[in-house]
Amino acid sequence: MVEPQPASPRLNGEENMTGAETNMRLKLPIICFILQIILIILFGVLVQYNDEVDAREWHDKLDHGNKSHSEHNGHPESKVHSNYENDFYYRYPSFQDVHVMIFIGFGFLMTFLQRYGFSSVGFNFLIAAFSLQWATLMQGFFHGMHAGKIHIGVESMINADFCTGAVLISFGAVLGKTSPVQMLVMAVFEVTLFAINEFILLSILGAKDAGGSMTIHTFGAYFGLTVTRVLYRPNLDKSKHKNCSVYHSDLFAMIGTIFLWMFWPSFNSAITAHGDDQHRTAMNTYYSLAACTLATYGMSAITAHDGKLDMVHIQNAALAGGVAVGTAGEMMLTPFGSMIVGFLAGIISVLGYKYLSPIMEEKLKIQDTCGVHNLHGMPGVLGAIVGAVTAAVASKDIYGNGMEDVFPDVAEGDITASYQGVRQAISLAVTLGMALVGGVIVGFLLKLPIYGAPPDTICFEDNIYWEVPGDEEEAHQDKASVRMTETERLNA
Amino acid sequence: MVEPQPASPRLNGEENMTGAETNMRLKLPIICFILQIILIILFGVLVQYNDEVDAREWHDKLDHGNKSHSEHNGHPESKVHSNYENDFYYRYPSFQDVHVMIFIGFGFLMTFLQRYGFSSVGFNFLIAAFSLQWATLMQGFFHGMHAGKIHIGVESMINADFCTGAVLISFGAVLGKTSPVQMLVMAVFEVTLFAINEFILLSILGAKDAGGSMTIHTFGAYFGLTVTRVLYRPNLDKSKHKNCSVYHSDLFAMIGTIFLWMFWPSFNSAITAHGDDQHRTAMNTYYSLAACTLATYGMSAITAHDGKLDMVHIQNAALAGGVAVGTAGEMMLTPFGSMIVGFLAGIISVLGYKYLSPIMEEKLKIQDTCGVHNLHGMPGVLGAIVGAVTAAVASKDIYGNGMEDVFPDVAEGDITASYQGVRQAISLAVTLGMALVGGVIVGFLLKLPIYGAPPDTICFEDNIYWEVPGDEEEAHQDKASVRMTETERLNA
Amino acid sequence: MVEPQPASPRLNGEENMTGAETNMRLKLPIICFILQIILIILFGVLVQYNDEVDAREWHDKLDHGNKSHSEHNGHPESKVHSNYENDFYYRYPSFQDVHVMIFIGFGFLMTFLQRYGFSSVGFNFLIAAFSLQWATLMQGFFHGMHAGKIHIGVESMINADFCTGAVLISFGAVLGKTSPVQMLVMAVFEVTLFAINEFILLSILGAKDAGGSMTIHTFGAYFGLTVTRVLYRPNLDKSKHKNCSVYHSDLFAMIGTIFLWMFWPSFNSAITAHGDDQHRTAMNTYYSLAACTLATYGMSAITAHDGKLDMVHIQNAALAGGVAVGTAGEMMLTPFGSMIVGFLAGIISVLGYKYLSPIMEEKLKIQDTCGVHNLHGMPGVLGAIVGAVTAAVASKDIYGNGMEDVFPDVAEGDITASYQGVRQAISLAVTLGMALVGGVIVGFLLKLPIYGAPPDTICFEDNIYWEVPGDEEEAHQDKASVRMTETERLNA
Repeated sequence: MVEPQPASPRLNGEENMTGAETNMRLKLPIICFILQIILIILFGVLVQYNDEVDAREWHDKLDHGNKSHSEHNGHPESKVHSNYENDFYYRYPSFQDVHVMIFIGFGFLMTFLQRYGFSSVGFNFLIAAFSLQWATLMQGFFHGMHAGKIHIGVESMINADFCTGAVLISFGAVLGKTSPVQMLVMAVFEVTLFAINEFILLSILGAKDAGGSMTIHTFGAYFGLTVTRVLYRPNLDKSKHKNCSVYHSDLFAMIGTIFLWMFWPSFNSAITAHGDDQHRTAMNTYYSLAACTLATYGMSAITAHDGKLDMVHIQNAALAGGVAVGTAGEMMLTPFGSMIVGFLAGIISVLGYKYLSPIMEEKLKIQDTCGVHNLHGMPGVLGAIVGAVTAAVASKDIYGNGMEDVFPDVAEGDITASYQGVRQAISLAVTLGMALVGGVIVGFLLKLPIYGAPPDTICFEDNIYWEVPGDEEEAHQDKASVRMTETERLNA
Repeated sequence: MVEPQPASPRLNGEENMTGAETNMRLKLPIICFILQIILIILFGVLVQYNDEVDAREWHDKLDHGNKSHSEHNGHPESKVHSNYENDFYYRYPSFQDVHVMIFIGFGFLMTFLQRYGFSSVGFNFLIAAFSLQWATLMQGFFHGMHAGKIHIGVESMINADFCTGAVLISFGAVLGKTSPVQMLVMAVFEVTLFAINEFILLSILGAKDAGGSMTIHTFGAYFGLTVTRVLYRPNLDKSKHKNCSVYHSDLFAMIGTIFLWMFWPSFNSAITAHGDDQHRTAMNTYYSLAACTLATYGMSAITAHDGKLDMVHIQNAALAGGVAVGTAGEMMLTPFGSMIVGFLAGIISVLGYKYLSPIMEEKLKIQDTCGVHNLHGMPGVLGAIVGAVTAAVASKDIYGNGMEDVFPDVAEGDITASYQGVRQAISLAVTLGMALVGGVIVGFLLKLPIYGAPPDTICFEDNIYWEVPGDEEEAHQDKASVRMTETERLNA
Repeated sequence: MVEPQPASPRLNGEENMTGAETNMRLKLPIICFILQIILIILFGVLVQYNDEVDAREWHDKLDHGNKSHSEHNGHPESKVHSNYENDFYYRYPSFQDVHVMIFIGFGFLMTFLQRYGFSSVGFNFLIAAFSLQWATLMQGFFHGMHAGKIHIGVESMINADFCTGAVLISFGAVLGKTSPVQMLVMAVFEVTLFAINEFILLSILGAKDAGGSMTIHTFGAYFGLTVTRVLYRPNLDKSKHKNCSVYHSDLFAMIGTIFLWMFWPSFNSAITAHGDDQHRTAMNTYYSLAACTLATYGMSAITAHDGKLDMVHIQNAALAGGVAVGTAGEMMLTPFGSMIVGFLAGIISVLGYKYLSPIMEEKLKIQDTCGVHNLHGMPGVLGAIVGAVTAAVASKDIYGNGMEDVFPDVAEGDITASYQGVRQAISLAVTLGMALVGGVIVGFLLKLPIYGAPPDTICFEDNIYWEVPGDEEEAHQDKASVRMTETERLNA
């Protein structure tokens, strides 16, 4: 049975100044249990399998060959003949890739902090496990209930993971400076705001945002930045020595980076229409990210006085291309168009990490731990703009009968492509507004001294909330002293 | 060319007491080569591609449009029109997720041990590579041979990985205390017993256990616990200082945990019927695991005197929800039902890790390294019970024509749903019996002093079986002495 | 905001002898930007979506039900009725597995080097991001342009990743001894040579090589070995102490190994014909790798004087089975046939690592960092031979109407199976010739002292090209001195 070695007092003297305030013994269980029980009750009352999941309903569809109830299936198929046509087969592989991005990608990307790895992966895990359940309810409510019930299937699983992504982006902005209780509270509100914003954009304004440049990245980043501004810590420099990486923590973070980079094509294409749309979105994202990577390496070297690459850039900025084609990915962006967008995103992102973040910290008091403004904020806005422009120039010539999958209202002649572009632009403004206003309100809620947040002197430290074993070095020294003691004993 | 640095004698003095007994120079090659050659011969005589894999047979099916030979395809499709209907496309993505769970999930989860990472990942790799081949034969034999041959396809690959999972669970119980030769011998017998038990449950008793709560988890756990009891080591406390984690080994273990957690929906749904069954099983598992995670974090904090989270709980107990819906996952468990099950599983699992395992070690002399009783044993039994209850209340109202995929005998009116529940309960008892009796027999076989197992003083140590390089610290010190030597030389 | 701690001068004194020559401040940005801009321009002029990706074209196909333009779809489907028949669904899951092998598999496998992890993962990332774009153009040109355009889809993404694999294999041969600029230059030429060789083999000679035993592994290995011979470093032993692993770097490398091993079935089957071919290729690869693993463990133990397993063997040789069935994987190799091939491959590979590589280094002056000759070189040649033999004995009896997917020319009676075997053998010779000649030419190009390559004394060191943070040990010591300073200050 595993027994964690207690952290040696010698090396962790300063960290053991955790007090009753940060003690999670009651706070965390109370919030976890209350939230989970509420979720169970609400699911019991409100949630049902949809007709691709429910045994009776699916087999009714098979027997009667009628797929009329199907919701987000793009080009409507007239009849369902076989189990092979269950939406599971056409969405689940993409879902799994999204899932890996949420749990491994985000979780390990944030392990760059040398003494916050447990919290990065662990709190990412907790926040996500809660958020995807709460998002299922919030989004289900807004996407439309049938007969007073929310019907769920693989597509709701994807959408819930998308919403969770926004919460984790915000977590990245405040990383190292909050308690897990604060993060769960933030998630409660952020998920709700996300669902409202998503509803306004997609259902009311009729915007398109398949990969969430606006709904996920812009929203998550500016919400998180606002929260971190409200929670500004004047003495955070006392924890400065821990707000950095060590050699192997940078390698752990690369696990996160690479999984995010590889699976982003699945992320952006996960809820696009079946057929050419999913195919095209995956390809646009793939090329955008490749170009972004080249740009990132070039920019990282050129902005360093000694030309040395900065792992922060490689870990983060190389991903900006995925964010920047989130909106336009399903459009006829063209391969080279995707590459241009990715290339620009990489340049903007590295410049942000190098020059803008320090300024934002010093002048605007925004302590953005992961630099989410450079990976999700600015590239998200770029993605929204690219989406607006690409939408505005859409035409029947380019899209043929595929127009109705991407721009249904334009295809039906209800609006012009230019107006679709305007919708996209308005959506960006709405998103920014929701993020900033929501971030202020939630930020002040989180400022209440009831959550067990760490003091400025011991941020970025796992030891507050986790039983932390010693390092190998301590283990060796302990071994040495064990051996010495045994020798002494034998020689006595 | 890479040359591993020899482990420094200073720090590893006590570990270099490896003797001729643990020398693998002949034992391991002999068993690896003999087993592999036997496998090759048996495959040569007995194994063929099935008609979805064989070039001639598949194209015959295509040309004649008749899919009458298809074995486990659920709802029988009347005609095969196209290569797109090859079962490969509807099983392989799930297979790959299962494969990742077996090799990355189990392999890295066990790297929490600070000096046993090579053996954890490495022996997991070896045991699995052997077991999946042997399982293909054993399960093929029991699933039914046609014309004296075992026909294989992607579904047999999944089933072989499932069987391997049980062996790896048992490996977790004895982790750190055995030689690789012992583990291969254990696998030879355990795979056979697994196949027999699976046959009794699924083919004779007619039970359902798609995700293996009984066949994989309950069986693997209690078999392994019995073996570890037989192999009780009275002086294991001498290795106590190594039976624990260090900071980065806990992060490596989280790689395993997160991949297991994310892919469990694929695991539980991998061999269910096509269509709604696979879809539903994946969703039930997803919600069970999410609720389990919330419960795990809450319980971990509340059971700690200082409220600090224990990585052991997060790494293991958060997965119990997947085990607990292994049987019922394909049933109409409902989303909130799945959450309740997962929530309970998390609570039980943490309580097990915290309170039961120490008691089992002290009173029952069961030295359960990974705490498999808490992740696979008790949650497996819970899963069997949940399955029995859910089966017993099944009705045509709930399942409609989908009943025949999940409970074919009930659908055909041969038995009542209550009786199906009884079958499930009997299956649990049979599984426990097989595991305990089999574990005793195999345990005593493994007690023979011929396998090169480590003595009590040097368990949980890679150095016995692996060439282990130094740590970075030693490397720095060696560098320092190299530099000093060069300076001295230059100054001479 | 993350601030990397500067590497402590005390421990890294010798590494800080990086001069203006290795300074990447201009070299790397220039080549990255120039290459990317050229790529963007060429893509803009030459590259279009194919008719499974383009909105207009796909919907035209749907409406007219005619799939006549489809290129590499194997058995031609007569009509396209539904979005579900988009090639995306039948290739993308395999593509993602290949992608993981390229970025995680190769990237992390090479992190075994104790101080070269950033460069291994990081330069792998950069080289691959460039190569897949350039390969899209090169291969598109040779695969045939329509109306002066290269049409791309998921299959071109797979083929581009395949070509990238060859470049990364070559990178493995020179790992630790080059600058990123050199690697990009190498990639420019190697991708072109790969595309030419692939065209000669597949289109002119009519050989089959679905998993690239010849086009990827043989070519990549011998090209890389030739380059590393030309770039021979007489004083490389001065960096010897860094050309090795430490405990946790070996664990990071196992992440790479295991992902490569698990996903190789997808790699070998990714571009085979739909239906039984993909299914069969995946299974052949799975069994070959399992047998290879058993052989590797046996050989590793028996070749060690103390019987201890060598991580180098487990990390690399266990994969040789995948390489060795690259060509024959889609053929009717039979399960036991695959196991025999894998078993042989494992034996050959370990013998290579143990005995051949030292000889090649000493006698032939080939400094093969990753031992690519043992994993890709010899097993690649074995794979070519196995493919030639298996092709030569193909018959209508065995393949039935499936012959036309695997050996179209034999199926149509244009040539005999024996002649197909001859084609395969000639292809091996052509590949070796291309690799050796190409390697010499490119090797001398890379010998020019303009790329900022490191001197012999500081190879295998990240510090040259990366901002490297300190280790945890240094961080602890820094913490200690910070605390001491504060105490002194307080006591002043």
